[in-house]
Amino acid sequence: MREVAVIGIGETKFGELWDKSFREIGIEAGLLAISDSKIKGEEIDALYIGNMSAGRFIDQEHIAPLVADYVGLAGQNLPATRIEGAGASGGLALSSAYMAVASEVHDIVVVGGAEKMTDVSEVYAQEILASTADQEWESVFGATFAGLHAMIAKRHMHEFGTTREQLGMVAVKNHKNGALNPNAQYRREMALEVVLRAPMVAEPLGLFDCAPLSDGAAALVLCPLDKAKEYTDNPVRIASCGQAGDFMALHDRRDICTMDATVVAGKKAFKYAGIGPSDINLAEVHDNYTISEILAIEDIGFFKKGEGGKATEEGKTALNSEISINSSGGLKARGQPVGATGVAQAVEVVRQLRGEAGDRQVKDARYGLTHNVGGTGASVIVHIFEGGV
Amino acid sequence: MREVAVIGIGETKFGELWDKSFREIGIEAGLLAISDSKIKGEEIDALYIGNMSAGRFIDQEHIAPLVADYVGLAGQNLPATRIEGAGASGGLALSSAYMAVASEVHDIVVVGGAEKMTDVSEVYAQEILASTADQEWESVFGATFAGLHAMIAKRHMHEFGTTREQLGMVAVKNHKNGALNPNAQYRREMALEVVLRAPMVAEPLGLFDCAPLSDGAAALVLCPLDKAKEYTDNPVRIASCGQAGDFMALHDRRDICTMDATVVAGKKAFKYAGIGPSDINLAEVHDNYTISEILAIEDIGFFKKGEGGKATEEGKTALNSEISINSSGGLKARGQPVGATGVAQAVEVVRQLRGEAGDRQVKDARYGLTHNVGGTGASVIVHIFEGGV
Repeated sequence: MREVAVIGIGETKFGELWDKSFREIGIEAGLLAISDSKIKGEEIDALYIGNMSAGRFIDQEHIAPLVADYVGLAGQNLPATRIEGAGASGGLALSSAYMAVASEVHDIVVVGGAEKMTDVSEVYAQEILASTADQEWESVFGATFAGLHAMIAKRHMHEFGTTREQLGMVAVKNHKNGALNPNAQYRREMALEVVLRAPMVAEPLGLFDCAPLSDGAAALVLCPLDKAKEYTDNPVRIASCGQAGDFMALHDRRDICTMDATVVAGKKAFKYAGIGPSDINLAEVHDNYTISEILAIEDIGFFKKGEGGKATEEGKTALNSEISINSSGGLKARGQPVGATGVAQAVEVVRQLRGEAGDRQVKDARYGLTHNVGGTGASVIVHIFEGGV
Repeated sequence: MREVAVIGIGETKFGELWDKSFREIGIEAGLLAISDSKIKGEEIDALYIGNMSAGRFIDQEHIAPLVADYVGLAGQNLPATRIEGAGASGGLALSSAYMAVASEVHDIVVVGGAEKMTDVSEVYAQEILASTADQEWESVFGATFAGLHAMIAKRHMHEFGTTREQLGMVAVKNHKNGALNPNAQYRREMALEVVLRAPMVAEPLGLFDCAPLSDGAAALVLCPLDKAKEYTDNPVRIASCGQAGDFMALHDRRDICTMDATVVAGKKAFKYAGIGPSDINLAEVHDNYTISEILAIEDIGFFKKGEGGKATEEGKTALNSEISINSSGGLKARGQPVGATGVAQAVEVVRQLRGEAGDRQVKDARYGLTHNVGGTGASVIVHIFEGGV
């Protein structure tokens, strides 16, 4: 198989974009990435789109050719494919696009992620999120998505002494980073006291331990690494991708304090890339709840199991510390348009590896990692990127 | 890239399977294919599932890890990915699985397609089907899926003199084939008079010009061609896949009597396989409406534009005639569980190329083709298979 590079990135502002439709945010992110890559539209061979639930959010299935059409590429009969893996939809779209280029089926591929979540009621949106857990054994009995993550948090606190404050510190750090990101949904810092006294959603998780519902889209342009310099001076190599799954329902898992799919996906990605966790300079991990970031940084191998909360408290995950975690602000502050997440994570890592992240630039970054989770951990996809190639 | 083979096939009976759940039909097809291939579960590297709208039909997104879980493979952290492209979901899942093996990312991959459509009201099911057309410019104004295809039929009759009887003869032929298929939803022949006097759905399409709503699932096991003989004596090579897209809405198309995406996808597939339409012995084409089969056999290149109706009338598409079209019974008689279609088409072609199709066996078949359509033609995927390798 041949090597693959990212040669273009684009993303919309994330937030409650009530004046823009699904197709409009899809177009915006796609055109930004195409323009950034300096390719011509007619050079594009295929489009992959990550999206969780357009069927329910906007009553529209079959959204991949819809975006290809409205971005102006239907006239060239562009192949367009949608990938769905709940919260991991964007990352899985990226890995499908990566394989399409690696297998030599396609040369230049655009991969996008998009979700429009705020045009339905909050209650209906939460019901849709819960439909990514096991409908027959979890959601139907009233388990909400936050409730399932609250159980993980309680158990982690019980097993390892992780504190309520440490959970809150994940939110504080990510809001600090998000304040530096012009595309973030929440561009304001948040004091720990504010996080701790927020209304309770599912004990111990308060309102500010939960990533928001958002609208937004992100896109990348991929091409074979050996052609990348024809388009850009600073291509970023996709060093590897690793995907893993797990039981759908939380009660079937070996241990809810460890996300086995993250452990396995991470090991695959590190093995193929030929590097280890200590080589990574920055990572965008799936912090849909504050506890999720703590599990992620342990399960990927940045910190020992049970020490993620302590590492956060000691500032080891802050911008330009031991490892910069969620420099974009993460799902927590940048926002969480579900299908866009995995692609937006890659946009941030590529931006950092190109040295274009402005006030939140991670210094001397060579390797970046993205970690994207579907459901409560039944799908995980990890990508490793290398800059300066 | 390396060559890829099909080493196992499986499918459920298609029909109104009210006593079986989505996960049960997924398990059934998957286990049949795994058993047929003689692989062990622990050898499987990844799962791809084609599905159109589980989010709306059964309130469950994220169905790929769900099927992996209930088939018994979650314990090995199997990567599982869902692909959605409306009616082309199954074919697109197959092409994604094909690229995963061709790119050397995975060795042994199971690809499934499944849909459970009959647990909701007929009206809601039709609304879901219509959500694969352009929601904002077609469905919202009341265009049904049958109505859009009726416009294609009317225009084709006007342009080329295709007759109402010729449309009906597609249904008659496919029911004749379906009667020979133990897994078909409708195992009965149907006289032309019965088709012609059926209640009108959208003029000129009557009830028996429309494929039914169905439950069902199908699955394939893929591996590198050079390892296929370790598992089976009769592997079938995937000679090529070709995908193309088009404008979402019918009114934007260049010519509604030609499905450009079929033309382009077919050309790509023939070019890569190094053969032409006259080399194909049998084809499963997307006959969700009788007019769709006529467009397909013209646009793939089996017959000249405008002569599909006449060719059908002259019996050139019947079993063991000039080219055997829809030996399975097609969507019309075998049934149409949407996400399963593209995979079920491949199951039929592989079965024929292995010489295991019983009463409906196509004689001396070497090359088979599948043609799978999403929406009214905004997504098309064509695969070519070769037996006796």
